[in-house]
Amino acid sequence: MAPITYKEIHLVNRPEGMPSDDDFKFVEQTVPALQGGEILLKTLYLSVDPYMRGRMQDAKSYIAPFQLDEAITGGVLAEVIASKSPQFKQGDIVNGNLKWGEYNIAKADGLQKVDPSIAPITTRLGVLGLTGLTAYFGLLDIGKPQAGETVVVSGAAGAVGSIVGQIAKLKGAKAVGIAGSDEKIDYLINELGFDAAVNYKKDSFVEDLANALPDGVDVYFDNVGGDVSDAVMRLLNRNARIPLCGAISSYNAAGKDLGPRIQTSLIKTSSMMQGFTLGNYAADFEKGATELGQWLQAGKLKYEETIVEGFENTPQAFLGLFQGSNVGKQLVKVADPDFAKL
Amino acid sequence: MAPITYKEIHLVNRPEGMPSDDDFKFVEQTVPALQGGEILLKTLYLSVDPYMRGRMQDAKSYIAPFQLDEAITGGVLAEVIASKSPQFKQGDIVNGNLKWGEYNIAKADGLQKVDPSIAPITTRLGVLGLTGLTAYFGLLDIGKPQAGETVVVSGAAGAVGSIVGQIAKLKGAKAVGIAGSDEKIDYLINELGFDAAVNYKKDSFVEDLANALPDGVDVYFDNVGGDVSDAVMRLLNRNARIPLCGAISSYNAAGKDLGPRIQTSLIKTSSMMQGFTLGNYAADFEKGATELGQWLQAGKLKYEETIVEGFENTPQAFLGLFQGSNVGKQLVKVADPDFAKL
Repeated sequence: MAPITYKEIHLVNRPEGMPSDDDFKFVEQTVPALQGGEILLKTLYLSVDPYMRGRMQDAKSYIAPFQLDEAITGGVLAEVIASKSPQFKQGDIVNGNLKWGEYNIAKADGLQKVDPSIAPITTRLGVLGLTGLTAYFGLLDIGKPQAGETVVVSGAAGAVGSIVGQIAKLKGAKAVGIAGSDEKIDYLINELGFDAAVNYKKDSFVEDLANALPDGVDVYFDNVGGDVSDAVMRLLNRNARIPLCGAISSYNAAGKDLGPRIQTSLIKTSSMMQGFTLGNYAADFEKGATELGQWLQAGKLKYEETIVEGFENTPQAFLGLFQGSNVGKQLVKVADPDFAKL
Repeated sequence: MAPITYKEIHLVNRPEGMPSDDDFKFVEQTVPALQGGEILLKTLYLSVDPYMRGRMQDAKSYIAPFQLDEAITGGVLAEVIASKSPQFKQGDIVNGNLKWGEYNIAKADGLQKVDPSIAPITTRLGVLGLTGLTAYFGLLDIGKPQAGETVVVSGAAGAVGSIVGQIAKLKGAKAVGIAGSDEKIDYLINELGFDAAVNYKKDSFVEDLANALPDGVDVYFDNVGGDVSDAVMRLLNRNARIPLCGAISSYNAAGKDLGPRIQTSLIKTSSMMQGFTLGNYAADFEKGATELGQWLQAGKLKYEETIVEGFENTPQAFLGLFQGSNVGKQLVKVADPDFAKL
């Protein structure tokens, strides 16, 4: 067949502050002849996630930085177009950490086969994947919500936060969400069954939050940091637990990100704050995905996706995360499959 | 006998920022006739501690605020002068949470008898009392230092910090102290056996700290908060543990105490920060005091006391805590005993 040309997205600048279009470059590539063991994958969906902002910095962290002038990598759902590996055949759907590209050439290692009959394949990038597992382990292992306690989650309408609140409810706790629009507040209360939800963009936020938390805060699952978290910290109960999942409000702070020191609040309440990343729980992924899948199939867990169409819109979909333009998991739909029936 | 008159120290203002002499008032009292069950106590030593600053505010905390126009209370060592309780007799030495007064009238409840033959009685206000136990439980229960790890402690020459570093060494960890004078640095390294110690008042502090911590920080026992802790937070290892004992640098901040947000550092390193107060461990005091006593008698634990003479100097001794004028436990010697031989 004629050589296939396709585009990849490379990181060409390390952004200071909010990233912009100039930090990304679309680079044309040609599919080479496959070598033994190699698989040609056509991207169907790719995942954009807030944690990727951290990888754009050249800083020591839990995960290596993206290299300049190389493709950005992340969660990708793809279809096998051609395979020189015995493990995969044409038409298989796979999930892996792959390049932001319309095609990838990969080896079988690190690819997981996705069975489209179990659930929509996109759940593998969301509720049954990175974001669902992050909610599951952060809340249950660190937050340890008890029946009757109050769980607050920021970024509550996002891919992680929306699952956190629902798991809190499944454990008999009260779930209170913080999000940034009245539509999201409505979604949290009326679709997902949160007990209360507060819009942090309103001038009355601090007061609204206190009113929504008459019994204080036992668990605060923090996705956002910044002013929102400052307000929650004033309402901690004794022995509160704070799983620190993300600090999206800080990721694009170019200068110093200053705020009220929180140590005294933690001392006064004997509270605990624990940073974590999903990789800490790699040994338990199977267990977590199984339980999430059971809840999903039993109709106990709902999820939302915000899907941008077109590979060329990937940078905008990523940047939109920092403006709160998504409800639930933000995905980019790149193409329909050539062979699989979904 | 003629009525005994004596002085108590009352809190007459709630200080904003650093307390001053005007916040305290010496009030003359007369010892009443003892009722059944009452004990007349003459104060020998009293303890001034940083946590008392918090009780001077009218704010929700783990411990009730001091009442205005009433005596301040804290750790006191006293001699029984007269007793209408069968549990104590003239000449007994007792330890209790009592008024800052030259005399106290108390009931037997809440008084512990002190055996002067075991160790100098002042150890009951320090290494075998509140400060030693605070070091013991905070470090071992939250910090969990492992052999070969690096434990950093701020306020290292203070009553709590000096014990933290020595327990870290007893557990096979490396101990690095932070303190505010070259004399204290010398004391930590040459008297207490710390592996390194850094003077936070030097312009080169941030660099000196990094140089003293080539292997990073596994446990940070934080007594001070503020800029000092900001510097330590940049050097955390993966899975670091941070027992939050105090934030003495913040206690007198009248306005907002702002600093760089720390959530991202905790996330990147999967580190844990836990506030605590000694009261959390009340059920285990006996165990802690026993082990501390064994280490003390075996010569494995050294302690220092800074003793100010004279009840009238109590406010100055308290205020000196915030200028770092003490090494080890700060005490006020109020009087010699009338009956006991110490």
